[in-house]
Amino acid sequence: MRSHGVICFAILLAAFFFSGPIDGREIRGQVATGDFEWNAQNFAGFYYDLDKDLGTERITTYVTYGKLEEPNGIVYSTTAQANDFEFEDWGSYNVIGFLGKKYFAGYTENENMDGWTQMLYQESTDENSLSEEQLQTILMDSDAEMTITASRPLKLAEGYELAIKYIDSSGMLVELTKDGMAVDSKILMPSKDGATMADKTYIYRTDEDNQKGLVIIAIHFKNAVTIQNQTVATVDGLWQISDTPTPVRIDTEFGKMRIASVSADTIVLDNKDYNIALSKNRDIELLGNIRIRTADQEMMDDANPLRYYIYLDEKCNS
Amino acid sequence: MRSHGVICFAILLAAFFFSGPIDGREIRGQVATGDFEWNAQNFAGFYYDLDKDLGTERITTYVTYGKLEEPNGIVYSTTAQANDFEFEDWGSYNVIGFLGKKYFAGYTENENMDGWTQMLYQESTDENSLSEEQLQTILMDSDAEMTITASRPLKLAEGYELAIKYIDSSGMLVELTKDGMAVDSKILMPSKDGATMADKTYIYRTDEDNQKGLVIIAIHFKNAVTIQNQTVATVDGLWQISDTPTPVRIDTEFGKMRIASVSADTIVLDNKDYNIALSKNRDIELLGNIRIRTADQEMMDDANPLRYYIYLDEKCNS
Repeated sequence: MRSHGVICFAILLAAFFFSGPIDGREIRGQVATGDFEWNAQNFAGFYYDLDKDLGTERITTYVTYGKLEEPNGIVYSTTAQANDFEFEDWGSYNVIGFLGKKYFAGYTENENMDGWTQMLYQESTDENSLSEEQLQTILMDSDAEMTITASRPLKLAEGYELAIKYIDSSGMLVELTKDGMAVDSKILMPSKDGATMADKTYIYRTDEDNQKGLVIIAIHFKNAVTIQNQTVATVDGLWQISDTPTPVRIDTEFGKMRIASVSADTIVLDNKDYNIALSKNRDIELLGNIRIRTADQEMMDDANPLRYYIYLDEKCNS
Repeated sequence: MRSHGVICFAILLAAFFFSGPIDGREIRGQVATGDFEWNAQNFAGFYYDLDKDLGTERITTYVTYGKLEEPNGIVYSTTAQANDFEFEDWGSYNVIGFLGKKYFAGYTENENMDGWTQMLYQESTDENSLSEEQLQTILMDSDAEMTITASRPLKLAEGYELAIKYIDSSGMLVELTKDGMAVDSKILMPSKDGATMADKTYIYRTDEDNQKGLVIIAIHFKNAVTIQNQTVATVDGLWQISDTPTPVRIDTEFGKMRIASVSADTIVLDNKDYNIALSKNRDIELLGNIRIRTADQEMMDDANPLRYYIYLDEKCNS
């Protein structure tokens, strides 16, 4: 019976895995013959934000006698774009798509706004992550209102929590912990008359390798009051990026491509040292989960050049 | 130790399931403003065969004052294309993409070939499925060589099996079963001198509703011999379509669209009875797993028209 049970479970598991749709595993870009350029519009594997029309990732091919010759027969590039925080008074930051995923690339000055409200930019020492050859994952970006109390702290990502320690007419003491250990504390005065952005915003800065004094957590308090011995604070702005950077250093390899240059706003990869032959019926590892597939076509001549596309090898949940 | 093993396995399983990327669930098409047409090149959700450059699915939108007005503000169309069997001597059939999936649409005559080898077309009474307002899933299409023996029958899909019952100098008796029940038997003579296509090909026909005498199984034998009392037959051509058709009858609804017309080679759907408003920040059920997403954009005026795209809501394995 026991072995029957195991076999039955294995069969059920197999049925579960193989009955689902499998076509969608491969997200293909537009079909090319010869030189081509894919972007977020003809390749759904690249990062694109419909609401704000953001996303500049590009892969360009230059075919020479059936080959993508090293060092730049194939080039990937991506450029940071300014994006507003959900809590708009803080101004803006640079967002960048990198290998199909969205990252934070640095705080930027929004010249259409007062400087003093742009605290994340103002308070950061090395505010441009790309200049330090790194990026950060964006963990929280919200302007939804929520309340916290002395007994119910604000849970953040990566083990951080912000707790109210005490509150009186002169201000509110908050304490930041990571995995239960205190790492910072500050006094804010969100409800005083004429409270400024600085009075209302909790900021936590840290060093990430060579990038010094980077704001990784910002929390805006709309107010903080004590009602019948119960302290209640209303948060209406929230921002957190990872305290562990994603390095994008020159010469790092991702499959057959490597980072050729990193500027203050742009990352470029090329295929230095890797010639890529575009011959028929090939499935070629290219860059992260992005691959090249060439057609197994019967006719191949000047009138019927080789068809090929890039595709994202989507892992789904299996 | 045993329970630790189980817990460890559970954790590994969880890590396996949740570490995969989930962004890819939404396979978006190219972004549009105003009238637009998506096809297999700018929307990876449609059927496309790179090797043979097949796939004609299209969605066309006509925006009238911010609306896709019924009955044809949005139109889906798809047209069958001739495709060779993997076992090429049999000729060709019509393949069609329908809602992103590949289907059989009928057997066709290949005028560049001898008629008598095109047995699937010749032997079918109602050879055009689309003319009967239905399609079939293609289950097997192969020219790989494999051997079967009297004790090891050929396993097909949907519960079918082909077994060799006996063989002698005058021929070979084969029997087709479905779920263990005999449904057909025939004598073939694949190894006689000057054997024709008919001598070498097992054909099984059935009625699928109004579509009479449709070949749903074809098996080509390269040879059949008896060696030391053991009968061995070599199969080098295999074809099977489903015995249960996929109906595509006029007026059938798929989400907000319905089949408007079905001809011998083309299916057209429109949005009769459903006006679709393209206003901001909407996620609209459209057609099967294909949906429309509109941007939650701040500026919307003549210079900044509403952005929208169609996307495939990919189920993956969860």
